[in-house]
Amino acid sequence: MINIAIIGFGVVGSATYDVTIQNAELIKERIGDSVKVKKIVDVRDFDNHPAPELLTKNFDDVMNDPTISIVVESIGGLRPSYEFTKKALMGGKSVVTSNKELVATHGVELTEIAKQNKVSYLFEASVGGGIPIIRPLKQCLAANEFNEIFGILNGTTNYILTQMREEGRPFAEVLKDAQQKGYAELNPSADIDGYDTCRKICILSWVAFGKGVDAEKIDRKGISEITAKDIEKAKAAGCVIKLIGRAKLIDGEVYCTVAPEAIPLDDPLAIVDNVYNAIVVRGNFVSDVMFYGQGAGGRATASAVMSDVIEIARTIVASRT
Amino acid sequence: MINIAIIGFGVVGSATYDVTIQNAELIKERIGDSVKVKKIVDVRDFDNHPAPELLTKNFDDVMNDPTISIVVESIGGLRPSYEFTKKALMGGKSVVTSNKELVATHGVELTEIAKQNKVSYLFEASVGGGIPIIRPLKQCLAANEFNEIFGILNGTTNYILTQMREEGRPFAEVLKDAQQKGYAELNPSADIDGYDTCRKICILSWVAFGKGVDAEKIDRKGISEITAKDIEKAKAAGCVIKLIGRAKLIDGEVYCTVAPEAIPLDDPLAIVDNVYNAIVVRGNFVSDVMFYGQGAGGRATASAVMSDVIEIARTIVASRT
Repeated sequence: MINIAIIGFGVVGSATYDVTIQNAELIKERIGDSVKVKKIVDVRDFDNHPAPELLTKNFDDVMNDPTISIVVESIGGLRPSYEFTKKALMGGKSVVTSNKELVATHGVELTEIAKQNKVSYLFEASVGGGIPIIRPLKQCLAANEFNEIFGILNGTTNYILTQMREEGRPFAEVLKDAQQKGYAELNPSADIDGYDTCRKICILSWVAFGKGVDAEKIDRKGISEITAKDIEKAKAAGCVIKLIGRAKLIDGEVYCTVAPEAIPLDDPLAIVDNVYNAIVVRGNFVSDVMFYGQGAGGRATASAVMSDVIEIARTIVASRT
Repeated sequence: MINIAIIGFGVVGSATYDVTIQNAELIKERIGDSVKVKKIVDVRDFDNHPAPELLTKNFDDVMNDPTISIVVESIGGLRPSYEFTKKALMGGKSVVTSNKELVATHGVELTEIAKQNKVSYLFEASVGGGIPIIRPLKQCLAANEFNEIFGILNGTTNYILTQMREEGRPFAEVLKDAQQKGYAELNPSADIDGYDTCRKICILSWVAFGKGVDAEKIDRKGISEITAKDIEKAKAAGCVIKLIGRAKLIDGEVYCTVAPEAIPLDDPLAIVDNVYNAIVVRGNFVSDVMFYGQGAGGRATASAVMSDVIEIARTIVASRT
């Protein structure tokens, strides 16, 4: 039995719990042992919690349980996730996260702490939701020198741009609509001003080029100034407008940008609409490969979280023999 | 030092040699040790071989060298690759292959032999050229129950269908042109009659559903009867015609088909043109994810071959400590 704890029982945390229950049998078969959620940490009260007996408000309950070997951090933001992650790693527990802000800000340091404590800090879910991208960069494409990595990394802005194009409606109106549908936050700045894309391109750049970039120093432009006229103009030129995050290696230096770009209709990125994401990796042997799928949402993100849990669980099982 | 041997120095074998030379430094950095090609086996004579001192016509030279731990099999076909692979695995050497025919026919048995001998038999390059797909199924998406896997798995037929559509030319004429350009074989049956796609869908079905399927029993239809009129008709209906390989799980049984299908223009597969491939995986949590890239060609395939070599090399390095 591999015991895990989930800290933060929001959209991603609850979907991660669901996948451990719903796919329990096949996960057991694929790992060679079962994975069980032993504790769920959240400061909130829940009316209809699926497993109230696992709930605690105190993170120390996880730290004091030596049978828990993996912690899923799905709190989001920097506090208290940074502190909890550090504590878990230093206490010999591996940590899996979907928290792009934390990885973009402290990923290098937390990975180092994990290494020193002979555990893992994995973050497949921090970029592109359910789309495999971190592990492909580290493994499947590891024979390549990477030249460039770019893509549509934010579902909210892509949804807004798609609706503006398809329905000819202005930005403010579509944003309001997206907020009502739950696709955009009430304070939409992190998405529409490109901060979220900056964090993701910063994580990708670190994994692909081995160089940490400060997300706040990235040359950034959001989509709030895009007008219906811009979109018409792009259309007339055989293009669609997409918010693109881009990291490029030039003479050994990494250059990152986040900005709306006109993408020609015959470019595979042009077909990526609504809340979908896609990431293109350019390697010196593989040329261009693209990874496409749902870039957000509880279930898709839980798929990525759980793939990291499975990787660590397999290592634990292998180390027993 | 991790020593490898390459058997079969054709398009894939020579590109694999190239990647070990050209990306030697970064591969060393990523593994923690260097990878060196110690022997190259081929029965042919070469006028301008890049490393004549490594050449041998005798596979036993590889078997008799205990310092070689990984064999790259890029001979293709069933003979003598089956025999050589078996010999290598039983002799305690891991084998990496791009040989879809061998994997589709004897993959289950060879994987079992590898397991018994505590080595690996890896075949990322056997489907989709450089596109990561085997490892994502085994790892990145391992938390999912797979419902269906389908895609454009053959570059030659996709090139022919794209040219027919774009230039309005008939099948026979485009095929001839593709043969002259080297995109189609002189005997094009394996591609245009769908046999190649059958082998690939059979490998994907085995990896995703854990069930071996006999490639020869798959319901198969090629593209040789597609007319310019069919393509016009599809266009009028807002579709493009693509040769699709498909494996589906229905009530615990796997159903595989290979046939031309009309794909709506807003489907991401519709944009996959010319020699590009794309594979869609449908999981119960991740929903649809698509992997897109060059499905063939020496350098892209060598990227996948080398990713398997790197995985095994990392295990060897880790086992030393």
